[in-house]
Amino acid sequence: MTLPTPAQTARATHVRAGRTSAVTRTLPEETAVAMVYGGSTQAVMMATPADLEDFAVGFSLTEGIVTHPAQIERLEVLAHPKGLEAQMWIADDRTEALAARRRFMAGPVGCGLCGIDSLDEAVRALPQLGDAGPVLDAGQIAGATEALRAWQPLHDQTRAVHAAGFLVPGRGIVLAREDVGRHNALDKLIGAMARQGVDATTGAFVLTSRVSTEMVQKCAIAGGAVIIAVSAPTAHALRLAQGAGITLAAFARGDGFDLFSHPQRLRAEVSHVA
Amino acid sequence: MTLPTPAQTARATHVRAGRTSAVTRTLPEETAVAMVYGGSTQAVMMATPADLEDFAVGFSLTEGIVTHPAQIERLEVLAHPKGLEAQMWIADDRTEALAARRRFMAGPVGCGLCGIDSLDEAVRALPQLGDAGPVLDAGQIAGATEALRAWQPLHDQTRAVHAAGFLVPGRGIVLAREDVGRHNALDKLIGAMARQGVDATTGAFVLTSRVSTEMVQKCAIAGGAVIIAVSAPTAHALRLAQGAGITLAAFARGDGFDLFSHPQRLRAEVSHVA
Repeated sequence: MTLPTPAQTARATHVRAGRTSAVTRTLPEETAVAMVYGGSTQAVMMATPADLEDFAVGFSLTEGIVTHPAQIERLEVLAHPKGLEAQMWIADDRTEALAARRRFMAGPVGCGLCGIDSLDEAVRALPQLGDAGPVLDAGQIAGATEALRAWQPLHDQTRAVHAAGFLVPGRGIVLAREDVGRHNALDKLIGAMARQGVDATTGAFVLTSRVSTEMVQKCAIAGGAVIIAVSAPTAHALRLAQGAGITLAAFARGDGFDLFSHPQRLRAEVSHVA
Repeated sequence: MTLPTPAQTARATHVRAGRTSAVTRTLPEETAVAMVYGGSTQAVMMATPADLEDFAVGFSLTEGIVTHPAQIERLEVLAHPKGLEAQMWIADDRTEALAARRRFMAGPVGCGLCGIDSLDEAVRALPQLGDAGPVLDAGQIAGATEALRAWQPLHDQTRAVHAAGFLVPGRGIVLAREDVGRHNALDKLIGAMARQGVDATTGAFVLTSRVSTEMVQKCAIAGGAVIIAVSAPTAHALRLAQGAGITLAAFARGDGFDLFSHPQRLRAEVSHVA
């Protein structure tokens, strides 16, 4: 099976100061990906056509359809003319979780939580991280998003895709995934970590994006206690992180960061300004 | 009824060069918004709690549930502890469109198209713009995203929300809406335009974001023939724009832009580089 190429070239006319010139740009591809369980479609997302097995496993985990990759008994990615299909068969004891999740899903579209058939379900309860998670130096947090840049080959080509990485103190970024959608990038990373046996409590999720409600939900469900992001959290995402016991560092851009919640995971090496 | 405030302040610890200081940041709020038709929930999205009537009308239009705002016979926004509900009652002759759309929706989550229960439906056919739409000067296109900045008060406060605006040649930006989600911002704009009787063929949609498949779909369904964006299109979004007859200008940042499709709507005033 051949997947579409994640980056495609396109011809364009560059217009600047009253002059035009023919240019070739490299654009990220975007492909419809259906998540199919036991022959029935659960969701279709537009995604970068790469790391589809990681995506399928991560989606299944963060949606609560499975709690361990081994509960996916078979996984096959098929290419169709109009998109890709991740066909999964799950363990019998997970079919009730699938049915329950399906009952709450009604709808489409949008960025963030969609299609969950009640406001209660949209703000579903999250696991509590408690004392889990690493302790990080200020320099590790500040440098995390720069460290992630070495893991973004598709972004180097296109300047237009997101990445999610996993940072382990003393080891740096150990795994990362890219996607045109930041939610997909995080699902792919969480799937890759689960498939490779990387324990989410041993490090920090590093994000190239803002931190929305759904990004915090995915990290918490994966068991991650630390989120480091290049941009801002929403106020609601911050409340979720506070409630779940997650350390949230934002605006992490090499020289510094803002620490919004649970500062106990920042090593107390820094001097306080009076 | 009181909506949550679209921007909230939060305390944080700013860490920089080994020193910490207490800071106050202004974060965008994010609220679960349920779209409810005839008492039944169609979708829940996380959105900025503002311009909810525009959002409900725009969502109904771009989802094809109605084709004109007058087909929404009643619209009421209700606040609940866990989120907001846009309760709508639609004309009898639209209930089949609602039911048809509902049958195609299964799923949740993600950025872009989600929950449409088939790959075919995910890449639904778009209206053809043909000869419709304005002719724009290069300067109007290059300056569009800068012109939009005057319409982004929430972004001025938070630096973390998207905007969609409508530019009419000779009049500048005539309408704009903001949201934490770029899809929501565009739905709010399309709803506001429909409610105020602004004809989408008279100008250009101006976006602060990348141009994904779903952004092109929404613009095409609204009847817009020109998209001007600050960042890149995906390759699939470009193919959709080419097919629908939409002029797509990207990387529009004051001094220039790349024109990717249907250049006939660019006024031929510029000299060509040999």
